[in-house]
Amino acid sequence: MRKLKHWGWGYADEQPGLDQLRETAGFLRAHLGFGWEEPEQPAPLPRLRPARLRPPDGLAAICSLDDEVRARHSYGRSYRDVVRGFRGQYESVTDVVARPGDERELEAVLEWAIGAGAIVIPYGGGTSVVGGVEAPLDAGAVVTIDMGRMDRVLEADDVSLSARIQAGASGPRLEEQLAAHGLTLRHYPQSFTFQTLGGAIATRAGGHFATRQTHIDDFVESVRALTPSGWWESRRLPGSGAGISPDRLLLGSEGTLGVISEAWMRVMRRPSHRASATVRFSRWWDGVAAARAVVQSGLTPANCRLIDADEARLTFAGDGSAALLLLAFESDSLEVEELLGQALTFCDAGEVSERRRAGDRGEAAESWRESFTRAPYLRDTFVAVGVISETFESAITWERFPAFHERVIEWTRAAVVSACGDGSVTCRLTHVYPNGCAPYFTVLAPARRGEELEQWEAVKRAASDAVIESGGTITHHHAVGRDHRPWYDRQRPDVFAQALAAAKRAVDPAGSLNPGVLIDAGGGGGGGVSSSS
Amino acid sequence: MRKLKHWGWGYADEQPGLDQLRETAGFLRAHLGFGWEEPEQPAPLPRLRPARLRPPDGLAAICSLDDEVRARHSYGRSYRDVVRGFRGQYESVTDVVARPGDERELEAVLEWAIGAGAIVIPYGGGTSVVGGVEAPLDAGAVVTIDMGRMDRVLEADDVSLSARIQAGASGPRLEEQLAAHGLTLRHYPQSFTFQTLGGAIATRAGGHFATRQTHIDDFVESVRALTPSGWWESRRLPGSGAGISPDRLLLGSEGTLGVISEAWMRVMRRPSHRASATVRFSRWWDGVAAARAVVQSGLTPANCRLIDADEARLTFAGDGSAALLLLAFESDSLEVEELLGQALTFCDAGEVSERRRAGDRGEAAESWRESFTRAPYLRDTFVAVGVISETFESAITWERFPAFHERVIEWTRAAVVSACGDGSVTCRLTHVYPNGCAPYFTVLAPARRGEELEQWEAVKRAASDAVIESGGTITHHHAVGRDHRPWYDRQRPDVFAQALAAAKRAVDPAGSLNPGVLIDAGGGGGGGVSSSS
Repeated sequence: MRKLKHWGWGYADEQPGLDQLRETAGFLRAHLGFGWEEPEQPAPLPRLRPARLRPPDGLAAICSLDDEVRARHSYGRSYRDVVRGFRGQYESVTDVVARPGDERELEAVLEWAIGAGAIVIPYGGGTSVVGGVEAPLDAGAVVTIDMGRMDRVLEADDVSLSARIQAGASGPRLEEQLAAHGLTLRHYPQSFTFQTLGGAIATRAGGHFATRQTHIDDFVESVRALTPSGWWESRRLPGSGAGISPDRLLLGSEGTLGVISEAWMRVMRRPSHRASATVRFSRWWDGVAAARAVVQSGLTPANCRLIDADEARLTFAGDGSAALLLLAFESDSLEVEELLGQALTFCDAGEVSERRRAGDRGEAAESWRESFTRAPYLRDTFVAVGVISETFESAITWERFPAFHERVIEWTRAAVVSACGDGSVTCRLTHVYPNGCAPYFTVLAPARRGEELEQWEAVKRAASDAVIESGGTITHHHAVGRDHRPWYDRQRPDVFAQALAAAKRAVDPAGSLNPGVLIDAGGGGGGGVSSSS
Repeated sequence: MRKLKHWGWGYADEQPGLDQLRETAGFLRAHLGFGWEEPEQPAPLPRLRPARLRPPDGLAAICSLDDEVRARHSYGRSYRDVVRGFRGQYESVTDVVARPGDERELEAVLEWAIGAGAIVIPYGGGTSVVGGVEAPLDAGAVVTIDMGRMDRVLEADDVSLSARIQAGASGPRLEEQLAAHGLTLRHYPQSFTFQTLGGAIATRAGGHFATRQTHIDDFVESVRALTPSGWWESRRLPGSGAGISPDRLLLGSEGTLGVISEAWMRVMRRPSHRASATVRFSRWWDGVAAARAVVQSGLTPANCRLIDADEARLTFAGDGSAALLLLAFESDSLEVEELLGQALTFCDAGEVSERRRAGDRGEAAESWRESFTRAPYLRDTFVAVGVISETFESAITWERFPAFHERVIEWTRAAVVSACGDGSVTCRLTHVYPNGCAPYFTVLAPARRGEELEQWEAVKRAASDAVIESGGTITHHHAVGRDHRPWYDRQRPDVFAQALAAAKRAVDPAGSLNPGVLIDAGGGGGGGVSSSS
């Protein structure tokens, strides 16, 4: 079996050697204007604190106490996580990694862990960028439940275009099994290769589609999850108005209510018709207006992503003189050329630079897509060559977007200059709605060796403050985890947090599941005093 | 001000006189084969039990203890409700009807009512068909909060296509205000004339669109509600993945968590392009296959409703020889003729009987639409002439729909024959999804004077058992209320009900809000023992 890196993205055999890193470092210095000449090598795995609990004999075969396995499961894959892993800093570390192969084993693991007073962290692909799979520092014993062995498509129903899929199936695993039935989920987050279905549902991940069905939420038909109080399973229904949706209470629960075991998902036939175009806008706001007009017309392109000129240059998608709008339509049964044509009628202020049918996607789109899925790999390299590289994202209604964009860029750039001396903050729109958009910001800046975490923390704080004070959400599709909590707590209604905390206490009375992520079960915030605001 | 009927649908001046009722009775007997020759007249309003509490002086001006007002607010408008009101049977009656004009008054009313130990029933248009606004028989004092005075569109944002609308705005009220901005919500349930935005959100009402955006849920941008623990208000966001959606916990809460005060809604520009067609299918299942193929192709017609041959005949939409599929597309900016053409390519097994552009909608569609919005009025007449007339609805995935349809029709017809001796059970699809459909059943049967409630109860019990045992939902868009509780309790996950009950206790510690609707705050069902099922 291929070995995964314990500290970074993907497989160990994909990590470039020192010569290659030196070459990349030189290239990046020329392209970005910063980065170290001499790359740093990842620290060897340190000896971890001994595990504070041991599984009973009956579970030993599916549990690991191995240092490499524990280290790999102790952090997600944010910039902060990679820097810490790269340097061998493991303050917070899980004690046991359990890998159940079926629901009986899942039940046995959860029962044992809760009985032993351990904290339980449900774990999909470990691709969290918000501290979603990391134990709190003051935690007692920690058991991570890695769902990766439960990775099968159990049923595929091509009459109702639905499939029953186990939670631990990664993107490639579930797509390869669905492909055998001519079906596809088409949920392609940047973490596609490693993220799992259960993780996507627990975190309300954003996927392939830039319009209409932007989050995994829209593809969920029913969910089955194991909670400390028993199984929580909804009916398979195409739609329902029977009270509050039980699925919507699991969607976004981030491992605090239960461990998702499987879900019936809405799938589709593989698209055979495709049409795409790239439109250059010399003015960013013309591109924004075009994206808004397209989505407000009622068209629902699969791709409607706008990249600002600087980001296009930095990612080699463009030359930096224009923002790029990537438009694509796809269908298994309808001609889509005409839809693309209709979308382009809203792009008069731009210039169509590429237009392609079917599989032939156009250079800019191809280059961007390549950089999209390679980005997590590249980040490991950035860490090694002294480039701070991280993203943050939000959503805001259209009429507030100009002020939002101005403030977020301004505050974040100021923090970048102050903390790093140099660097860039660029923006793209990843998803668009009739009533607003989801802007996604990328920061690239020079790192000072050993001070990266403080540098990034200062930038992230400024960016998050700007996002929340401008009326946005602290995350459109990256989840809350531990890292976003201070800002999330300013965003969500206090009374709602009280309701949620009570729901968690009812389902998870010992507070075992992912404590501190999303909510504090003890209280949940606000005073609850009746007052008009 | 026009006087509303206290016992039935709409305005008192619309109730037909005795001569007209006799004429209708004769017509219906000829058409249906049953119904009384001599119509019954509605009973005069009886003297109600005296109110068990009185508002303080400061609230007297916005509270009513009047018998007519109390009677009108004590029941919804199901068949059972209308029969009881028609006969003057008011066992369960509210004590005080409060009509706050702004949020300060709403706060004062709620504080007083809870302080006085009363049960509080949030009330929109009172159009519930599931016992959603009726007090439990064993209740103490009851205060109904009628939101009808809070009926304004407070802001309209045509950049983001959003509007801030007060919860008490009825369909016509909010549409007339939005029309001044060239905007429309396009939420047209059958109860359009009287239902309110707040009621629609609280009950997850189904609306205008047969595909894609079927429930009011999809139009909610943010909600503001007053709970006994304070205000619950979410941010205006076009999309978010920040934890569990706070709005989705209010959507479908059916007045058990708070009183919705206002909401930011996604609105749209008024459609200027329309195209529609009616397709006749001599075989029902060919029509079902066509509807499925249309929606699975990715097309999202505004209307995609299939009416079975019997229902078409009974509603004068057809001659009874064919099922009718009504297809319509609409847009404010795109040509829709071609989309209709694409949809019709999936209808080869049928015969296009009408095809119209723009405002010209086609006879069958027009006739059906007319009968759609007149149905609630007609039901009052049915009660007077001895015809049991009621509907029930569900949703099911496509692959289970044939067995579902067969069992539901069979069990319901058997109950109709057994309880009524004669009658019809017909079906239409009101909403369709790529993974399933929402079938809607209509029962017409001869009533025995004074025994209608028992007759209908027997039919409803058989129908609901069939729906639940065949894997459907007890409601796709009529809500749970009190009437659906026994079946809803078999449908929703037990652990979810525990979570919800705990959330309610946290937000509404005295259990004041609509007790018994949707959940029992005391427990919420299931054992919660960990077991695999």
